[in-house]
Amino acid sequence: MELFYSNTINKNIITLDSIESNHCLKVLRKSIGDLVNIVDGKGTLFKGVIISSTKKICKVDIKETFKDYDKKDYYIHIGISPLKNHQRIEWFIEKSVEIGIDEISFINCSRTIRKKINITRLYKTAISAMKQTLKAKLPKINQTLKINDFIKNNFDDNKFICHLEKDISKTIFDYKKEFKLNKSTCILIGPEGDFTMDEIKISKNNKFSFLSLGDSRLRTETAGIVACHLINIMNNSYE
Amino acid sequence: MELFYSNTINKNIITLDSIESNHCLKVLRKSIGDLVNIVDGKGTLFKGVIISSTKKICKVDIKETFKDYDKKDYYIHIGISPLKNHQRIEWFIEKSVEIGIDEISFINCSRTIRKKINITRLYKTAISAMKQTLKAKLPKINQTLKINDFIKNNFDDNKFICHLEKDISKTIFDYKKEFKLNKSTCILIGPEGDFTMDEIKISKNNKFSFLSLGDSRLRTETAGIVACHLINIMNNSYE
Repeated sequence: MELFYSNTINKNIITLDSIESNHCLKVLRKSIGDLVNIVDGKGTLFKGVIISSTKKICKVDIKETFKDYDKKDYYIHIGISPLKNHQRIEWFIEKSVEIGIDEISFINCSRTIRKKINITRLYKTAISAMKQTLKAKLPKINQTLKINDFIKNNFDDNKFICHLEKDISKTIFDYKKEFKLNKSTCILIGPEGDFTMDEIKISKNNKFSFLSLGDSRLRTETAGIVACHLINIMNNSYE
Repeated sequence: MELFYSNTINKNIITLDSIESNHCLKVLRKSIGDLVNIVDGKGTLFKGVIISSTKKICKVDIKETFKDYDKKDYYIHIGISPLKNHQRIEWFIEKSVEIGIDEISFINCSRTIRKKINITRLYKTAISAMKQTLKAKLPKINQTLKINDFIKNNFDDNKFICHLEKDISKTIFDYKKEFKLNKSTCILIGPEGDFTMDEIKISKNNKFSFLSLGDSRLRTETAGIVACHLINIMNNSYE
């Protein structure tokens, strides 16, 4: 199955943007009358028929709508310090979308080196990963927020912070009893030099539990992926 | 802590190669008398003192040896179809080394597009990831083998194959009872177009159990990382 992406939906007609239209009409050589599958990035899949392709823009008449095509009962939120290398951020986005993620927040910590993020570029990566893995939902990607503001305004049901202080040995499986299933879970991943003691204290005061991702010293983007995978496991496969 | 890598050890003297010597002497400006940490890629960490730096080659006198610096009780083996994009293979190597892996075998399946692998380049990636994550052990990386030969000659204690046939819904956690802890585990990951029915049959005849990595349709390299993480979890955090 090939998926296209568009959120330009007017009554029964979906309009693909120039990039998607080009892919549809030029690369895949679709034409009027052909059946195509379109996702809206909000969880809905549409099946429709191409009705026009003027000025390189492809319009599709919706024939079938699958509202809960990409629905799950839990919510995954990763708060992560931006990485110096933008390619590694894109990689994190791609892989977390593949594994399953609902919201990504970039957090500006004391030891964060990069302060700005190219959100438009990250959405492109997310769209591409969503189509590739046959999903219909894009994660919400939030611009960088100061860590203190993030922590104080976070209302996820399960809240964790991963840091490298020596006394942290509890894995997510050790929180099995307290973990609220089928709810929203947020895991915070710090910058390369870790969170500061102050940041750790504030998170603790705001009910973030300390979490270990295991014995390996993971890079930030790898820690983000591992955290995302663990939340999926806790809600899904693990009993 | 900064780690250097060398497997040129003669009695009590370790010789760093030209790349590592350059990094040590030029980039980090170490000189005679400085203390350095060196790993041999086989699990041992050495602490030693630089005793010479002639002709841009750094020699180190071993002062302390930590034999089991990087020891774990279980063994992780991923058999994976090479990817068309070599960068994605390198990425798989980097991330699996970070998370923890002991052996990587490239398997040539009917639907595998790339037949050859640049093992030297992959070892460079593995060495870099090993140092970055403060590990002392490099995985064994095997040149591509035909899948039938691989399957028939595999003697790992736990054997799984991930394929996309519809009736496969058992996750690794559903195999909890049969799973042999602290032993070797092999998971096979197929090419983009999946294993063929013949390949799946042969694996079944050779006692590979069918495994689902979840509902998401993961890219090959992501499936490899997820599989690697799951074996670590089964042996480690999960009780």
